[in-house]
Amino acid sequence: MSIPEYILEWDRNDSLAQKKNEFYLPPGKRYFDGNSLGAMPKLAAEQVQQTLTQEWGVDLIDSWNKHQWIDLPQKVGEKIARLIGASAGQVIAADSTSVNLFKVLAAALQLNSGRHKVLSQSDNFPTDLYMVQGLSALLGDDRCELIDVPEADIETHLNEDIAVLMLTHVNFRSGKIHDMQRLTELAQAKGIIVIWDLAHSAGAVPIALDDCHVDFAVGCGYKFLNGGPGAPSFVYVAKRHQANLQQPLTGWMGHATPFSFDKNYQPAPGIDQLLCGTPSILSMRALDAALNVFDSVEILSVREKSKRQTQLIIDSVQSVDELKELSIVSPIDAEQRASQVALAHESAFAITQCLIDQGFVVDFREPNIIRIGVTPLYLSYEDVFRFVTALTAIMREKLYLKSKYAIRQKVT
Amino acid sequence: MSIPEYILEWDRNDSLAQKKNEFYLPPGKRYFDGNSLGAMPKLAAEQVQQTLTQEWGVDLIDSWNKHQWIDLPQKVGEKIARLIGASAGQVIAADSTSVNLFKVLAAALQLNSGRHKVLSQSDNFPTDLYMVQGLSALLGDDRCELIDVPEADIETHLNEDIAVLMLTHVNFRSGKIHDMQRLTELAQAKGIIVIWDLAHSAGAVPIALDDCHVDFAVGCGYKFLNGGPGAPSFVYVAKRHQANLQQPLTGWMGHATPFSFDKNYQPAPGIDQLLCGTPSILSMRALDAALNVFDSVEILSVREKSKRQTQLIIDSVQSVDELKELSIVSPIDAEQRASQVALAHESAFAITQCLIDQGFVVDFREPNIIRIGVTPLYLSYEDVFRFVTALTAIMREKLYLKSKYAIRQKVT
Repeated sequence: MSIPEYILEWDRNDSLAQKKNEFYLPPGKRYFDGNSLGAMPKLAAEQVQQTLTQEWGVDLIDSWNKHQWIDLPQKVGEKIARLIGASAGQVIAADSTSVNLFKVLAAALQLNSGRHKVLSQSDNFPTDLYMVQGLSALLGDDRCELIDVPEADIETHLNEDIAVLMLTHVNFRSGKIHDMQRLTELAQAKGIIVIWDLAHSAGAVPIALDDCHVDFAVGCGYKFLNGGPGAPSFVYVAKRHQANLQQPLTGWMGHATPFSFDKNYQPAPGIDQLLCGTPSILSMRALDAALNVFDSVEILSVREKSKRQTQLIIDSVQSVDELKELSIVSPIDAEQRASQVALAHESAFAITQCLIDQGFVVDFREPNIIRIGVTPLYLSYEDVFRFVTALTAIMREKLYLKSKYAIRQKVT
Repeated sequence: MSIPEYILEWDRNDSLAQKKNEFYLPPGKRYFDGNSLGAMPKLAAEQVQQTLTQEWGVDLIDSWNKHQWIDLPQKVGEKIARLIGASAGQVIAADSTSVNLFKVLAAALQLNSGRHKVLSQSDNFPTDLYMVQGLSALLGDDRCELIDVPEADIETHLNEDIAVLMLTHVNFRSGKIHDMQRLTELAQAKGIIVIWDLAHSAGAVPIALDDCHVDFAVGCGYKFLNGGPGAPSFVYVAKRHQANLQQPLTGWMGHATPFSFDKNYQPAPGIDQLLCGTPSILSMRALDAALNVFDSVEILSVREKSKRQTQLIIDSVQSVDELKELSIVSPIDAEQRASQVALAHESAFAITQCLIDQGFVVDFREPNIIRIGVTPLYLSYEDVFRFVTALTAIMREKLYLKSKYAIRQKVT
């Protein structure tokens, strides 16, 4: 295959080109699923290995102090803070995204206690809606009620009845980016507290939580932050809320003095009160190391490369005859599109399998979506070009009908 | 030092003697802190390494199916089930002990909805009390109220006013074992739902959850189960409660069909509904491998060796002159004593440090307790004998007064 000169030129001029050397990338694969599980930074594997053989294995319990396991949640939190526009003391790593969402949902409702409605978007990532439903079942509809509306109706629902606006910054299917600044402002003007889920944006698009005056945020460690499968999540609480916060998962690690074994809970001052139980150190260490990949990286450079890469896919689907039967679900406007492209087709499942068989790892999302995640830290322009070429051949030759997945496709 | 013949004889006849070869044990240390953080099974380190380099690193997202990451919570749960007397489908690994406690506390209160009081013991492990306090602050005192009483007063407080009895099976300081069968029976006779925290007993003492007709239990993966720092916790829900369960942390992994991305939460049938967010796979894998150490082990053999080992310490403290100034906080009766010995002394902190300096890793617990955890899987009788000998020398020569810790000791 001959690669066009402009593609080669883009790669030659790419300031992030060397970053892929910091990842372990298996031969024969081009990985377009970093929005589900980021690829493995070499340093993450090394550090976990070190944690096993030198820390747990040798220093045992003493490692909590000697190797600062005890400080990992704060240390990881501060590394993430830089990537999401948060100044110090507002971000900590802990638990899963779902659990952190529960903490801030309950805290936000308590801060806005005259109201009880949580507004969200019907096609939000389901766990976000589920956590509101769980809290609602626990507290009763009169203290927590989920109002989920289509995306187009969000703004008209921002009124004095709403306690909390909870949105995912980037839609997990389409990759559409919400205007965080505008929506936060509109909501707060009506006395609404705002929670952003950054699962599909942290590490991929610029985020300015402090500048947007966001109240709370949560996010995921294993997608664009490359922290490993089921990596700890993170949670952001704006400084102004920390003194009056009441989050319900009051475990010992969030106590002001966890080792005094006081029988009454006293929240730690600041962001530490968001901790609950003992953190999973192996997973926390992987995330800690993975974040070092971002050390010399400006998120704006990641974003610029990502836009150009997703645009290459979008432009091809719009211009190449063989690709025209794929519908573009993601925004055409690069400014509104995060680091993924979603394409719809009735044979999406089979097409996804054909791509995977050829070494292009993408994922399928019900009912008919091929989701192509672009991680500029380890994908070159050539990788994207080769992806488009492979997709074109699959569509041209209708390989997805001949493939062994055609049958499975009819079943789903 | 000459080791008495009976000690050598005990070691020669010890059916668990070879088990220590399955652990990585650092040279120069004898580890009596397995009740804080179990030592590292070699297989745990190997499996995590495999998960990094072969699974995350190579198969990436496909590992969820190819390497059955998705089944780990159930698989780990079933391995633990055997150790705690639970038949299949009742135990799952997830989250931290604190978070799991929150789930079952809320579920138990909902099942027993005419009542609202949670009875516990004032010197329970603090996080257990804190989680009730957090739930109480969220629901209000009229829906959840913590009643914490001294251990001696528990039975007299079991009445029709109490919704839930929540106890830790083995006291984290003294190592005293509650009579699970008797207390569960007494409580249930009054219509009380019973939750046991098995943090300091799972993997150390025989537990018969099914036979004792326990309602709920939670426990810790990183103590006697050796799952690594901050290993996932486990949770047990008796079959009879699973159909009517309402736990509030309704994350997507607990959904009946997590990959259908349904917008309404529908709990998975059975124990799976106790899952919440995406599990930390690296930590889960370490625990999974660590549990294989128990494959050919009967908990009764562990218990017999443990009793004899802690008895050796107790007998020495009672009979050796130099040790008589240490008070025995743990039960003298081996039947009531789990796998640890707590000794009190005004210089406990300095004595602990002297022991650690000599390679005997124990821990200090406020205000004046030396806590000696005994893990029969990797400690020999000779190890225990050498510990007693070292402690005797430290007490005889009052090394703790000369030591650099004498000053720190006055400060605490």
